[in-house]
Amino acid sequence: MERIINIEWTGSAEGGHLRLLDQTQLPTDTVYLDCKTVQDVWDAIKRLSVRGAPAIGIAAAYGCVLGVQGASQGVSQALNQAADHLATSRPTAVNLFWALDRMKKVEPCTPQWLLEEAKAIHAEDEAMCRTMGEHALSLMRQTLGQDAAGLPMPGVLTHCNAGALATGGIGTATAGMYLGHQQGLKFTVYADETRPLLQGSRLTAYELGQAGLDVVLICDGMAAQVMREGKVGMVITGADRIAANGDAANKIGTYNLAVLAKHHGVPFYVAAPSSTFDLSLASGDLIPIEERAAEEITQGFGKRTAPEPVKTYSPAFDVTPAELIRAIVTEKGVIQPVTQQRIGEVLGL
Amino acid sequence: MERIINIEWTGSAEGGHLRLLDQTQLPTDTVYLDCKTVQDVWDAIKRLSVRGAPAIGIAAAYGCVLGVQGASQGVSQALNQAADHLATSRPTAVNLFWALDRMKKVEPCTPQWLLEEAKAIHAEDEAMCRTMGEHALSLMRQTLGQDAAGLPMPGVLTHCNAGALATGGIGTATAGMYLGHQQGLKFTVYADETRPLLQGSRLTAYELGQAGLDVVLICDGMAAQVMREGKVGMVITGADRIAANGDAANKIGTYNLAVLAKHHGVPFYVAAPSSTFDLSLASGDLIPIEERAAEEITQGFGKRTAPEPVKTYSPAFDVTPAELIRAIVTEKGVIQPVTQQRIGEVLGL
Repeated sequence: MERIINIEWTGSAEGGHLRLLDQTQLPTDTVYLDCKTVQDVWDAIKRLSVRGAPAIGIAAAYGCVLGVQGASQGVSQALNQAADHLATSRPTAVNLFWALDRMKKVEPCTPQWLLEEAKAIHAEDEAMCRTMGEHALSLMRQTLGQDAAGLPMPGVLTHCNAGALATGGIGTATAGMYLGHQQGLKFTVYADETRPLLQGSRLTAYELGQAGLDVVLICDGMAAQVMREGKVGMVITGADRIAANGDAANKIGTYNLAVLAKHHGVPFYVAAPSSTFDLSLASGDLIPIEERAAEEITQGFGKRTAPEPVKTYSPAFDVTPAELIRAIVTEKGVIQPVTQQRIGEVLGL
Repeated sequence: MERIINIEWTGSAEGGHLRLLDQTQLPTDTVYLDCKTVQDVWDAIKRLSVRGAPAIGIAAAYGCVLGVQGASQGVSQALNQAADHLATSRPTAVNLFWALDRMKKVEPCTPQWLLEEAKAIHAEDEAMCRTMGEHALSLMRQTLGQDAAGLPMPGVLTHCNAGALATGGIGTATAGMYLGHQQGLKFTVYADETRPLLQGSRLTAYELGQAGLDVVLICDGMAAQVMREGKVGMVITGADRIAANGDAANKIGTYNLAVLAKHHGVPFYVAAPSSTFDLSLASGDLIPIEERAAEEITQGFGKRTAPEPVKTYSPAFDVTPAELIRAIVTEKGVIQPVTQQRIGEVLGL
């Protein structure tokens, strides 16, 4: 796999360190940060040099190893100090706490075993991405073969970044694309730029391009025209939270795509690990949608592009109702049709 | 009307000059250009200080007056020189040639009569906007009253800038909004920022805000969520070209909105002068769609936001099929339903 490496431990448990791709410098500069202290990792998480729930958890786990280096006495105490500090870096990141808790339970508490555990967390995430990718690739082969027959280069449209940069592996929505590319499947990825924060432009177009995939960047409002021209055989996105009935919250603009896909008869898929399901929520109506800062819309490109003052409305997420989703790809299998019953079957509830 | 003035002749035919709002400095700075020579007007058109087909025609007409100032001998020759030069400023602008041709036919060819003619072109455009506005306001009262009953502040969604800044009056898509505001109708305008060139953010939010309307700026991908939340009772946009069957080409992202509006049961309207119809085209499939430069997507606003190299696809326009358009508002009346027959009736063919 030629995918870009975003998180890597180099060297031994005692003398090694963590290398992180500095995502704040993308898409123009590919710069790695050498994190040699807990504070280095804390800073990297805080300033979004590493982002995406799985990636943050993995980085924090490696950060715990850095915290015990040189602490030949009191390793356990050093670990707790490191974990407590790292937990304050992004207090809303659930994977962060999950990974730190797992590190605190390592027995015996030695640098070597802590590094093994961090590597296990990393490898498990990588494996989960790959399994999702295999399921997604099956759907791609079916869908692009059937619905896009005759296109010289059938297209897959995605939104935001549910990619390698957000995980310890080949991403969620992107996983099938990486595997398909590796296996010689010919297709074009249309990447929505994803306003306001341009994750599609800055991150998805970057990482897929680095891996040699054929990526075409479009503005969000162009997706309907691209579908009308028959350029897209399927849409696949990630999800931040999925309710018990299959309604899926994801980056704002995803629901927009799902409506367009329905109108054009293009299947719309979601790829997300089973941990994304929040079965305490009966439906997507119960998923709270935070509103983001006006400045992301009014001066997101380096200079002000809106009058002052101006009102904005900037929901961070939207909810795609289950009936617009053809299938949800998880590491435990493909949920299709998207019904409460089928969700229970695939997740093994 | 509190709308911002974008084109104004000040002073006499012999000693006066043209004042233009410099749209290149919007939305942050409200700066007027004093154009005292033909070259000043040529420059203003060329660098897009004045833009929008009707506004360009009006500015060029006033430019002809500047061309004959002081030419007490050979006014006719000076006029022809001025008109020929102005015609090279934006060679694809149809209204420009139409206005210049009209100026060349003025008899007797004196500065006073030329100024009268330029003012007539300006006033006719203003009147046409107002008539469209009256029709659009009727639709707004019907639609917002019926479909959005119970909303504290029903919303009108628009895309790009089909506003006062593009015309000699109160715009096309915006005309009903200005009149409604003047008459005390309470509503919110949701303005799509309109990537890639952000005309909605830079121009529409600016001009409506200056006139005291309640404007909320959103990113293009948020429109579906805004509709789902019931915030929008109708959508109205302009059009660049309308085929004989009612298919309408407009700024990319318009078709996107029309599909979303249909899904949410929100009526979608187009407002455009009758000159927008190109009856030589049987349907919208025959409207050519130019592709724009990649840089508008990858580094539109002062810094690069996409990897290098990256492919882009950037259609400048899309075509909304007639069946998605509830009505087309023209200065000659409202075309509803949008059928070839009804188009013929309203346009008086």
